[in-house]
Amino acid sequence: MQEEGIRIGLIGAGRIGALHAGLISTRVPGARIIAVSDVVADAAHAVATEHAIPVVEDDATRVIGRNDVDAVLICSATSVHEEQVVAAAKAGKAVFCEKPLAFDLPSIDRMAEAVEKHNVPLQVGFNRRFDPVFSRVQRGIANGEVGELHTLRIISRDPEPPPIEYVRNSGGLFVDMTIHDFDMVRFLTGAEVEEVYTVADCRVDPAIDEVGDVDTAIIMLRFTNRVMATIENSRRATFGYDQRVEAFGSEGAISTDNVYPNTATVSTGESVRRDLPLHFFLERYTDSYVAELSAFVYAVAQGHPTPVSVFDGRAPLVLGEAAHRSHREKRPVRLEEIDA
Amino acid sequence: MQEEGIRIGLIGAGRIGALHAGLISTRVPGARIIAVSDVVADAAHAVATEHAIPVVEDDATRVIGRNDVDAVLICSATSVHEEQVVAAAKAGKAVFCEKPLAFDLPSIDRMAEAVEKHNVPLQVGFNRRFDPVFSRVQRGIANGEVGELHTLRIISRDPEPPPIEYVRNSGGLFVDMTIHDFDMVRFLTGAEVEEVYTVADCRVDPAIDEVGDVDTAIIMLRFTNRVMATIENSRRATFGYDQRVEAFGSEGAISTDNVYPNTATVSTGESVRRDLPLHFFLERYTDSYVAELSAFVYAVAQGHPTPVSVFDGRAPLVLGEAAHRSHREKRPVRLEEIDA
Amino acid sequence: MQEEGIRIGLIGAGRIGALHAGLISTRVPGARIIAVSDVVADAAHAVATEHAIPVVEDDATRVIGRNDVDAVLICSATSVHEEQVVAAAKAGKAVFCEKPLAFDLPSIDRMAEAVEKHNVPLQVGFNRRFDPVFSRVQRGIANGEVGELHTLRIISRDPEPPPIEYVRNSGGLFVDMTIHDFDMVRFLTGAEVEEVYTVADCRVDPAIDEVGDVDTAIIMLRFTNRVMATIENSRRATFGYDQRVEAFGSEGAISTDNVYPNTATVSTGESVRRDLPLHFFLERYTDSYVAELSAFVYAVAQGHPTPVSVFDGRAPLVLGEAAHRSHREKRPVRLEEIDA
Amino acid sequence: MQEEGIRIGLIGAGRIGALHAGLISTRVPGARIIAVSDVVADAAHAVATEHAIPVVEDDATRVIGRNDVDAVLICSATSVHEEQVVAAAKAGKAVFCEKPLAFDLPSIDRMAEAVEKHNVPLQVGFNRRFDPVFSRVQRGIANGEVGELHTLRIISRDPEPPPIEYVRNSGGLFVDMTIHDFDMVRFLTGAEVEEVYTVADCRVDPAIDEVGDVDTAIIMLRFTNRVMATIENSRRATFGYDQRVEAFGSEGAISTDNVYPNTATVSTGESVRRDLPLHFFLERYTDSYVAELSAFVYAVAQGHPTPVSVFDGRAPLVLGEAAHRSHREKRPVRLEEIDA
Repeated sequence: MQEEGIRIGLIGAGRIGALHAGLISTRVPGARIIAVSDVVADAAHAVATEHAIPVVEDDATRVIGRNDVDAVLICSATSVHEEQVVAAAKAGKAVFCEKPLAFDLPSIDRMAEAVEKHNVPLQVGFNRRFDPVFSRVQRGIANGEVGELHTLRIISRDPEPPPIEYVRNSGGLFVDMTIHDFDMVRFLTGAEVEEVYTVADCRVDPAIDEVGDVDTAIIMLRFTNRVMATIENSRRATFGYDQRVEAFGSEGAISTDNVYPNTATVSTGESVRRDLPLHFFLERYTDSYVAELSAFVYAVAQGHPTPVSVFDGRAPLVLGEAAHRSHREKRPVRLEEIDA
Repeated sequence: MQEEGIRIGLIGAGRIGALHAGLISTRVPGARIIAVSDVVADAAHAVATEHAIPVVEDDATRVIGRNDVDAVLICSATSVHEEQVVAAAKAGKAVFCEKPLAFDLPSIDRMAEAVEKHNVPLQVGFNRRFDPVFSRVQRGIANGEVGELHTLRIISRDPEPPPIEYVRNSGGLFVDMTIHDFDMVRFLTGAEVEEVYTVADCRVDPAIDEVGDVDTAIIMLRFTNRVMATIENSRRATFGYDQRVEAFGSEGAISTDNVYPNTATVSTGESVRRDLPLHFFLERYTDSYVAELSAFVYAVAQGHPTPVSVFDGRAPLVLGEAAHRSHREKRPVRLEEIDA
Repeated sequence: MQEEGIRIGLIGAGRIGALHAGLISTRVPGARIIAVSDVVADAAHAVATEHAIPVVEDDATRVIGRNDVDAVLICSATSVHEEQVVAAAKAGKAVFCEKPLAFDLPSIDRMAEAVEKHNVPLQVGFNRRFDPVFSRVQRGIANGEVGELHTLRIISRDPEPPPIEYVRNSGGLFVDMTIHDFDMVRFLTGAEVEEVYTVADCRVDPAIDEVGDVDTAIIMLRFTNRVMATIENSRRATFGYDQRVEAFGSEGAISTDNVYPNTATVSTGESVRRDLPLHFFLERYTDSYVAELSAFVYAVAQGHPTPVSVFDGRAPLVLGEAAHRSHREKRPVRLEEIDA
Repeated sequence: MQEEGIRIGLIGAGRIGALHAGLISTRVPGARIIAVSDVVADAAHAVATEHAIPVVEDDATRVIGRNDVDAVLICSATSVHEEQVVAAAKAGKAVFCEKPLAFDLPSIDRMAEAVEKHNVPLQVGFNRRFDPVFSRVQRGIANGEVGELHTLRIISRDPEPPPIEYVRNSGGLFVDMTIHDFDMVRFLTGAEVEEVYTVADCRVDPAIDEVGDVDTAIIMLRFTNRVMATIENSRRATFGYDQRVEAFGSEGAISTDNVYPNTATVSTGESVRRDLPLHFFLERYTDSYVAELSAFVYAVAQGHPTPVSVFDGRAPLVLGEAAHRSHREKRPVRLEEIDA
């Protein structure tokens, strides 16, 4: 590691790439971005200007190929993750890759093979593991505050659906949105899923149905350690980002509330009310992005293992496929059907 | 109706019968219990003494046969509900019958036939419909406060399992415990269920498994109006009676908390804490028992229809059977399979 | 005590008398009202009819004089409390007397003398001591949950001012409204006040100013045991009855919230809100009225001391006078100035 | 303004100076610290090293004298604020000065004169005005959400007392601790205080009494616009930093809760509990420090007035003296007695 910290190459300067660039430049000590690329050159230049990144490269290959890059942050389209991860591994770079790693399992398996062969660390961008609320629940379960875990419930609703073009190419609700929740159930339970059953519908916007997707779903999961869980998703909660979890066990329960911009309660002749919860992921999960990047930088600098592995990136995809098949075939689906 | 109010004959002086007797004598104006019977004569005498009931009859037939009885309160064992309801109907008495009406559908159908033929009102003891918390949610949904209802979730956990002998004869978790929640989903949605899927296990007490029952379950329901719901049951919540509901729709959500004995919060160097919620149904649902009995007495006195019909008593039993079959066969079960 | 319980004579059939009559007839076992009187004969008859009280007497003297009356409930105007309490004491009746006992201290002292001389129990109607919220705080302080008590705060606001005619004859805010809070600070601290300082104003309704009263006040109290307290009063809180307390000490704090009709939270695109808290004392303090009457009946039946003594009725009046003088003279007033 | 933003000279590298240095280097865009001094040279060097500040000067005069310094951040001892503010004003530097500006009013008046004469902006470090909770209350009051404001209450308790040496030189509770609350009541009401009454005691630590100070106080304030307020202070709340406010008015109320590290609630057989609130000002008010510094930097960069004026720094000191005199003389003190 250089005296001036980890030198990062940023691949992809879209919404999430720009977010990471801003956080690294202001809130993640021990790292700086020294080069950026994007298929849209203007986007790369804009991010470079805003966050004082000295070099804009023409493409990802050139970022990966730089001798002064210690680690790459892959924030590009899912379809090119595989080639970039594999190239970075070959170049001996540490890798931080956004979720989902890929839309198909063989692709992820090739990434896993590459990072193992070249012995580079890879961290998947499941930021919610680093959120203070969810990590508190994880610690509570792990420490036995609820005793033996019996059931788990995740509520995960967006304030509004993404643009229909985004939906069309998103891989579907279970891969695009539920994937975070699939990661969360594994993170919270510390266990693996055995069976999935899905009920889903299009209740929010008929345009989503027209592109073959759903916007409302409840997914029931049974784990190998007998835990039962439900995930409840919607593409639109009028009151804002609805992100909660409840864990119930032999000794008690932990439940969480949404996060609010302030603690004020206003009482009038009409009602006793609060302002709406934080609206979406940029507000709600900022601290978790800082924490996941800091954890990556720290692990790379210290030569420690990174905290969210390729396998953690793979498992939610298996769950997404199982959820999708269950919905299509209207029956519970065992994971071994997907991933024998 | 007599000037002094509805004259009630109480059949069954066990836990729930004694509860009703106490409430009628102190908190339900317009009615009084004038006769009581129980298969255990001592129980009938004890309740009569405690609540100043003038007459103890040898059996239910004699209570039903009294000319001065306007209405009967059937709080006996489920297995004798049918004969008592039918006899009361024949005698022209108004009937309040505890849940479940019966363990099998033909039995309920015969009760329905009898009350219809003899044109007597029958109210089923689904007291939770009269709880201020749940009735507030029902009004909110009916009034459109959440817009079009998309999903519904009920948490229903007891503080501790009943004695194993009770479990053995209870008809199983889905009929004994979930039946209240099956009624509640119908009450809250105002709709009928189309399909049921159950995951269930024995996590609380192996003795429950030994008598062939489960103690932990999540039941997923799909309604004819596209609403999706989950019911989560456990026979033991260490922190007390866990009775909550969340409704989510196109315009918002309503969620409820448990009910606490006081509003005090204690902050110390250890934690910021509250006392435990009300422990069980006697504390939690007292007001709902008062309200259901008052509604029955009022309806009978005024000649109005009673608020929870035989059909409302029948539908949860169909759901219980569907839930049980889904658990046994590990697949979603459509209601038409049970009740074609 | 008669087999059929304590036989009560009710003196005064106004709002609070009617309330007590209803509660005794339905929710207080071990007692019944057998006679009632009121200066407005129609009021006495109305209450007698509604609650099946067999006898209506022409005046309080006749109620007190009845041989079959074990105890009297004095719910008449404050100005006649003294003569009725003294007469009841002479007649050997147990006495429950509404607050305030009197508007002047010598009058209370004569009552105290009478009940002592004739050795009859007297309980003052400070019902809030029996409220589950406030009694929880009292227990917490007494049990050392907050350690040594340092400061105490009471919020006490009515939903709306009483009719101006009532205000005119009420004895003023500090005697009419704050008196409950003066009792509460003594009950919660278990200590006596040394000094009072008041700031007060008329902010709610100019008509209150015109009759020489205030409607908004903050009263600061210093206790002999070094506790400091504030009481905050208003005659109008638009959101309903605002009745809260916070106790702070060397080991922590206890604070309470208002009481709500249900636990539902409604989230929409506008806000996250609850229904308004219980509106006024009839809704908020019903249980406390039941409990204070039950405690009185139980103490009389068992020959135990009653729980709120003449001295407890006297002390808040001293505080009321001190608060009033402090307001008038714009300076802290020591209690020994009032009651040397 | 330079292309690279406002160039800041930091005077004082103690706790608060180091805090500001860290926040400016990571979270305040548009500014950087280019020089630092401290009476303890090692402290200046340590902060310079940690936050990459290029120059360490021997003393404040040299920092102020640098041509490349646009603004100074005065984080030194209160006793030297005056000379540093005056020197900075003479040098034409924008000034951010920590609270309290001084311990005596003539000193503040001389600072006011200097900044006015040399026409430089000065912002006082009342960070809590920038806290999302308190600023929400301020907006609510200003927007009329509570109607006309009647009463205001501030709770402000530290988790534990500072070292006794600090207390000895702090100027006393009312100047050291309450000063923030005095600023807050002015900020929230938008009005000026007319009269102050204090009750105070030493309940937390006898050592505080030995150095002539108090640790527990309730201060009652009457404003020129008839608002009444109380401030409740303690040097030790076992449960952590207790920072709340309640505003009550003709149309309703706004109240706030403390801020918690997460929203998790843990329910067990013992209690329903949360983790402790954020422990002290570093955790609780970080965002407000970032916001006040950003507001200063933005105002200086744009040539706008800075948001917390010398007068805002002076008024709380007048209040502190009034509170102190009221405590000493045990009587309400009008502000005109202090500041005719």
